[in-house]
Amino acid sequence: MSLISKTPQPPYYAVIFTSTRTEGDNGYGSMANRMLELAEQQPGFLGAESAREELGITVSYWSDLESIKQWKGNVEHLEAQKKGRKGWYQSFKVRVSKVERDYGFS
Amino acid sequence: MSLISKTPQPPYYAVIFTSTRTEGDNGYGSMANRMLELAEQQPGFLGAESAREELGITVSYWSDLESIKQWKGNVEHLEAQKKGRKGWYQSFKVRVSKVERDYGFS
Repeated sequence: MSLISKTPQPPYYAVIFTSTRTEGDNGYGSMANRMLELAEQQPGFLGAESAREELGITVSYWSDLESIKQWKGNVEHLEAQKKGRKGWYQSFKVRVSKVERDYGFS
Repeated sequence: MSLISKTPQPPYYAVIFTSTRTEGDNGYGSMANRMLELAEQQPGFLGAESAREELGITVSYWSDLESIKQWKGNVEHLEAQKKGRKGWYQSFKVRVSKVERDYGFS
């Protein structure tokens, strides 16, 4: 989770999830780990990157919109989304975007 | 920088910048603050979100590709990019993406 994802040549998709948390863990940490484990098993999953300070940012990469839709509708993930709205997050925003170009070095 | 950006209705663009740092500050912190200050003055700038743990993620939002190109070519920013490659970053990746859909709550 802590390294730069080795994504393929564009185009592919990025889901940018930014959030602020409520106080206390309340099971959030173990849920977050489980969701990553589960996402990695989904068709079309290409990688995920995450960091949190005041604001948390998780970017997950996907091969196509259908894979994102399937992941959003995953039963265990739906349960986590419900708990997120009810307790874990003070605010969040999800942005679904199409990566058109990338470059970098390592 | 620490709050969720109030972006307009899609479509708009997101530049996802992920990086790992080298040891020590070496002027990085003040450069990062200056670059945000400068980005905010650019035409087409819509907001920026940032967090760093092992991995640093900064997502900046822009109205169009031309604004992103102008920002990439900004003289002071070019100098920072050069120093980034030479010393501040161990690795980085820039992904230019088009936000097609967003939702959330606050």
